[in-house]
Amino acid sequence: MTEYKLALVGFGGVNRALAQLIAERNQQWKTELGFTLKIVGVTDLFLGSVMNRHGLDAASLTRLPATQGAMAQLPGGTVDALNETVIKDCGADIIAEATFTNPVDGEPATSFCRWALERGKHVVTTNKGPIALHGAELKALAQRNNVAFEYEGSVMSGTPVIRLAKQSLAGSVITGFEGILNGTSNFVLTCMEGGLGFAEAVSQAQALGYAEADPTADVAGHDVRLKVVILANELLDAKLTINDVTCSGIASLSLDDIEKARHDNARWKLIGAATRQADGSISASVEPRLLSNDHPLASISGATNAVSFTSELLGAVTVSGPGAGRTETAFALLSDIIHIHQSATRKQEHNQ
Amino acid sequence: MTEYKLALVGFGGVNRALAQLIAERNQQWKTELGFTLKIVGVTDLFLGSVMNRHGLDAASLTRLPATQGAMAQLPGGTVDALNETVIKDCGADIIAEATFTNPVDGEPATSFCRWALERGKHVVTTNKGPIALHGAELKALAQRNNVAFEYEGSVMSGTPVIRLAKQSLAGSVITGFEGILNGTSNFVLTCMEGGLGFAEAVSQAQALGYAEADPTADVAGHDVRLKVVILANELLDAKLTINDVTCSGIASLSLDDIEKARHDNARWKLIGAATRQADGSISASVEPRLLSNDHPLASISGATNAVSFTSELLGAVTVSGPGAGRTETAFALLSDIIHIHQSATRKQEHNQ
Repeated sequence: MTEYKLALVGFGGVNRALAQLIAERNQQWKTELGFTLKIVGVTDLFLGSVMNRHGLDAASLTRLPATQGAMAQLPGGTVDALNETVIKDCGADIIAEATFTNPVDGEPATSFCRWALERGKHVVTTNKGPIALHGAELKALAQRNNVAFEYEGSVMSGTPVIRLAKQSLAGSVITGFEGILNGTSNFVLTCMEGGLGFAEAVSQAQALGYAEADPTADVAGHDVRLKVVILANELLDAKLTINDVTCSGIASLSLDDIEKARHDNARWKLIGAATRQADGSISASVEPRLLSNDHPLASISGATNAVSFTSELLGAVTVSGPGAGRTETAFALLSDIIHIHQSATRKQEHNQ
Repeated sequence: MTEYKLALVGFGGVNRALAQLIAERNQQWKTELGFTLKIVGVTDLFLGSVMNRHGLDAASLTRLPATQGAMAQLPGGTVDALNETVIKDCGADIIAEATFTNPVDGEPATSFCRWALERGKHVVTTNKGPIALHGAELKALAQRNNVAFEYEGSVMSGTPVIRLAKQSLAGSVITGFEGILNGTSNFVLTCMEGGLGFAEAVSQAQALGYAEADPTADVAGHDVRLKVVILANELLDAKLTINDVTCSGIASLSLDDIEKARHDNARWKLIGAATRQADGSISASVEPRLLSNDHPLASISGATNAVSFTSELLGAVTVSGPGAGRTETAFALLSDIIHIHQSATRKQEHNQ
């Protein structure tokens, strides 16, 4: 039986949900997945940190209040976020990085990933910043150190969009994709189809917890742009930076636009897309697009996300599912760990 | 560089399309996929058979007329379908089985698979019969002989529904699925939404090549029932036989039913489904279901297929794409071979 020692970096909703899954399902995973997880370190800029090589109790961690320095309440815990020490020295095999996305320079998450990979530890993350801004460097670093760097959750939370494309569609020759990659803006557009104006729709999204106090990153397309960079670089072997992706949001859409679209059997959607051009270059954009109602993405409503891949051999294949949610995003981390385990197991089987 | 020797069993549209892909893309695969394919045998009940351990020319094979005994036109070819000889003795590593589906006993395809697996050859197939009727036996046989038995194309052609669920959704704890798994019946329903009666809609499907001369297997749900058995056994570890799946088709739906549904913001769809019950048992059915327009499958129109998986950790994740087509189904065989290659490569990497 394999046991992976895990350090949780960032202890907000996602890693708390992962701790909750560990508390509830570790025994079940032993038979179903062939491994168990032991949390040996947790660090969070707000809560502090705690380490124990013999294992921390996952259930106790989930009960920790979300108050500054709360880690000090645990045996051996401290109010200080000893990020570097936890990442490098707590004895973890795998670092689960789930801190906030910094769209400017990807820090401090990128440094967290770098420290872990340099020390020969696998990294699983849900953070868009390190991949969109420093993906190539971190992938090379992981390869040099013979460890995995997995980030399924960075694009569509637990909905497996990267792995679907890279594993299951391998050989189909993907030439482009279109995606609804931001639940907030899609929810706003769905509300506007119900007759609400843009400002009212944003307020409703905020009231229901779908939108931040400052919704700019969502409705202006900045969040989608990061995801387009990640997907285009991963699936089309593009070498895009954020500035290569033209970006306009949905704030310019009026109720008249929405109504006129309905009259034409169409819908406005905020679409993140990338396409391989005839000359081999990749064009990428984030913009509102008018989709006819028979387009595979036209019916994706509310907070659901979806990506439609175009490939030479299959035409359009579309996957839709949750694009956010604590448990859903924690599943993305679990699926990355499963992937690491499966790769390791195949090698081991051969060795016997 | 790995070269897999391939025997094509059944040389209708699907294996012809695979030969075409090999003729056009083998060199490209060398760099993109890390292997090439060499066809060393072809056999077909109508066309005859041909073998050559040094390789048959894929392009010449695709130009062969679809006339009885046509294989005799090739050097070393014969009008006789030497199935057993080709499968057992042509030196193939992998058998690509793409003969017709026999829903009664799965023959002769099941025997073809058995011969290959017993001889230690991998089998890739798009044929529903052997899996739905003899899946457990054939999987056990493959395991005993340490070879792969892959059948991604048996459910949704090239749209990767089995691999999505088994690889990418592993750990999410799938509790059930609903699918639109027959393009013909879905096309008929879409036509009826356009105002055609059932009989007229079937005629139109036949005129466009979506429906067989005898459309019973499609519109009565028998085709979907085989796919439900395959998916339920594969993903829910059910041990279903065909008779465990209740089955009713779409012939009883009237234009009034369709119109009434539209009025209620809903749509009739032929749904194949299976669900794990509280007591652990699996209930499975094929039946017309009234789906509200916000159901993930309601907008799947025309000949497109889709499956929506329900899991404990993710809720609904839906994949849609082509459910038929020669090249699309040939891609399913290719994707099975890629899977075989990736498993082998991981072992090899470790060995170095």
